[in-house]
Amino acid sequence: MATDLSRGAGVLTIDLDAIVDNYRVLQRRSAPAETGAAVKADAYGLGAERVAPALAGAGCRSFFVAHLDEGIALRRILPAAWIAVLHGPPAGAERDLVEHRLTPVLSEPGQVTRWAKLATHTPSRLSAILQIDTGMTRLGLGRTEVEALVADHAILNALRLTTVMSHLACADEPLHPLNAAQLARFDELRALLPPLKASLANSSGIFLGPGSHFDLVRPGVALYGVNPAPGQKNPMRPVVRLTAPVIQLRHLEGPAAVGYGARHRSEAGRRIATVAVGYADGYLRSLSGCGHASIDGLRVPVVGRVSMDLITLDVTEVPESRVEPGQAIDLIGEGCDLDALAAKAGTIGYEILTSLGGRYLRRYLPPAA
Amino acid sequence: MATDLSRGAGVLTIDLDAIVDNYRVLQRRSAPAETGAAVKADAYGLGAERVAPALAGAGCRSFFVAHLDEGIALRRILPAAWIAVLHGPPAGAERDLVEHRLTPVLSEPGQVTRWAKLATHTPSRLSAILQIDTGMTRLGLGRTEVEALVADHAILNALRLTTVMSHLACADEPLHPLNAAQLARFDELRALLPPLKASLANSSGIFLGPGSHFDLVRPGVALYGVNPAPGQKNPMRPVVRLTAPVIQLRHLEGPAAVGYGARHRSEAGRRIATVAVGYADGYLRSLSGCGHASIDGLRVPVVGRVSMDLITLDVTEVPESRVEPGQAIDLIGEGCDLDALAAKAGTIGYEILTSLGGRYLRRYLPPAA
Repeated sequence: MATDLSRGAGVLTIDLDAIVDNYRVLQRRSAPAETGAAVKADAYGLGAERVAPALAGAGCRSFFVAHLDEGIALRRILPAAWIAVLHGPPAGAERDLVEHRLTPVLSEPGQVTRWAKLATHTPSRLSAILQIDTGMTRLGLGRTEVEALVADHAILNALRLTTVMSHLACADEPLHPLNAAQLARFDELRALLPPLKASLANSSGIFLGPGSHFDLVRPGVALYGVNPAPGQKNPMRPVVRLTAPVIQLRHLEGPAAVGYGARHRSEAGRRIATVAVGYADGYLRSLSGCGHASIDGLRVPVVGRVSMDLITLDVTEVPESRVEPGQAIDLIGEGCDLDALAAKAGTIGYEILTSLGGRYLRRYLPPAA
Repeated sequence: MATDLSRGAGVLTIDLDAIVDNYRVLQRRSAPAETGAAVKADAYGLGAERVAPALAGAGCRSFFVAHLDEGIALRRILPAAWIAVLHGPPAGAERDLVEHRLTPVLSEPGQVTRWAKLATHTPSRLSAILQIDTGMTRLGLGRTEVEALVADHAILNALRLTTVMSHLACADEPLHPLNAAQLARFDELRALLPPLKASLANSSGIFLGPGSHFDLVRPGVALYGVNPAPGQKNPMRPVVRLTAPVIQLRHLEGPAAVGYGARHRSEAGRRIATVAVGYADGYLRSLSGCGHASIDGLRVPVVGRVSMDLITLDVTEVPESRVEPGQAIDLIGEGCDLDALAAKAGTIGYEILTSLGGRYLRRYLPPAA
C-alpha cells in the first residue's frame, strides 16, 4: 500500500490550531465586542465540519453562513450555536429556518414582509437580523426601505429584531473614503431604528479599529490565515499547507516547448518537474507561467500553462540530489505565501481558498488541548 | 416547502442527452478509430457518477481518469469498462491498480521499472499504456528513455504494452507548427517500439483530421459542450445550464458604489439585482465588471466585483415587469455561452467547468432512450 503522499495527488494540511489561535487574536482585538465567525462556503473551502467545531471549542458562539442549506448542514454539526443565514430566507422556505433554529438576515423588503407574516402566525422565539445597505449596494435595505419599515409598527414588532448589520466594501483599504461614509450611514440609519445590537466589521473591518467593532464582529478570511490588513505584516498564523509529489522529472536533451499552447520554451539542460495538481484542483490557470512552488525552501517557477490536472515547474536551480520523482513540493505554505500566490494569480487569498479542490487528501492538525 | 429554485442557490442543469449526442458526433468524426472518453476531474466537474454511465450506455468502452483514486471510484461505477489512469501508478501503489483492474499509463522510467517488476512477479493479465513525450514536455518518456526501454527486452516484454500514447499541446490551433512536429515525433518514436495501438488525439486533436486519429481518440471537453475548434462554429451541443434567482433588487435612489473596492459607480435610477452565486461557486472573480448574464434573452452585465457568495448585475435595461426577487437569471447557457464567458474571464471553458461549485442544486437531464 502506498503512503498517502505517494498516491500522487496533493496533500492539503489544515491547521485547526492556527484557526483557533487566529480566532483568539481577533477576539482580543475586538473585545469587548463579541467575535463571531463566518463559516460560509464550507468555511472558505477548508471544511465547515471540522472548522466550526474547532471554533466552537475556542468559545465562538455565533456563526454566519450564506445559504439556508449551509445553515441546515451546520445545525447538525453545532446543535447549540447561534447560526445566522446571511442570504436570508428564500421565499417559501421561511419555515425551514424556524425548524432548524436558524436566524435570518433580512435584507430585502419581500424577506421582511414574509418573515413578519410567519412570525405573527407562528409561535416561535426566533429573532432576526436586519441588514441595511450603507454603500456597498449588494444586500440590505436602503434608506427609503428602512423608513417604510420603521413606519410600520406591526411589521417591525413582529420581526423580533435583535441586531442590525451592514457590510463594508473597502475595509481592506483603511484610507478609502467609503469606510467613513459607510460608518456615518450606519449610524444615521440605526438612529431611525429601535435600539438594537449592531454588527459591521468583517476581518478587515476589525483592523480599522474600535470605531467599527460595535457589538459583534464577523471575521472570516482572517481566521483562515489571509492577511486582513494588506500592506502590513500579516497578524494571522498561516492555516493551509498544500504539498504534492513530483510525478515526473525530465532532463531536457534539447530545447523544448513546455505545456499547452507551447507558450514556454526551455533550453537544453533544464530540468522540468511535473506535479499532479492543476486548475481542476483550484491551482488557478491564471498562475500559468507566473506561479511558483518551493522545494526545501528553494523557489521553483511554474513554467508553461497550468493544465487541468498538472503543472510543470523548472527545478534546474535545485541540486539534483534534492529533487526526484516522489519528492514533495510545497505549493502553498512554506515559501509560497497564500496572499503572494493570489496576487500572482491576479486575485485574492479568498479565491485561492474557496477554489481548493476535492482531490486532495485533507489532513487536519487538531487544536492544542 | 420552497421550490428548488427558491432556495436561493444556483441550479446547475447537466444535459446527459447532449453529452451522449456529442459522443456520437465525435465517434462519427473519428471512425474507424475507437472513441474513448476523458472523465477525469469528476467528468470535468459535471459528475462522473452520472456522466460515465451515460457514456457507457452510448457505447463508450474506454475511459480515462487522471488519478489512481479517480480510477478506483470509477471502477465501482463501471465494473466492466476499460479504465486507464493517465498519471500512472504512484510508487508503492501499483497493486491497487491490479486490484481494481485499472490500466496504467506509464510516463516515467521509475513507473516503467516498477510496473515491469510487478508484472514479472504477479500473475496478472493487466496490460499497460506507454506514454511518450512528443513535444509538450509534461508527461511521457523522451527519446533517450524510449531507446533505453527498447534496449531492455526483459522489461519491455514484462510490461505487456498494448498501446502507445502521446498528447498534443496545440491541437486547438490547427496551424501551429508544433502539431506537425508532434505527429512526426510520434511516428518516429513509435517506429522504435514493437507494433502497438496508438492514441494521440484529445477533443481538438479529433478536429485536426484523420491523420491524428490513429486507433483510439480520447475526447474530454468537447463531450461537455466546449468548442474543440475555436474560431469555427461550435459543433457540440451545449451541456451545462446555470441559473440562479435574484435575491434582492435595488432601485438606486442616488448614485452609489457597487461591490467590494467600490470599483463600480452606478447612477441614480439604475436597478441592481443581487444573485447568490459567487467565486466560491466557481463564478470566477476575474468576471468582475466584465461577465454578463441573461434574463429572458436580455443581456445584463455583472457590475462591480464578484464576491465570494454573490454577484451584482445591472438590470436597468430589462423592463421592470420582467425582473423581481425570485426571478431566475441565466448565468451559463441560454444567452451566456460557456466559451464566451470563459474568454471574458481570461480563461478557457475547461476551467469554467472544473470550477463549478458544490452549492448548486444539480439536475441531470437523462439521455433519450
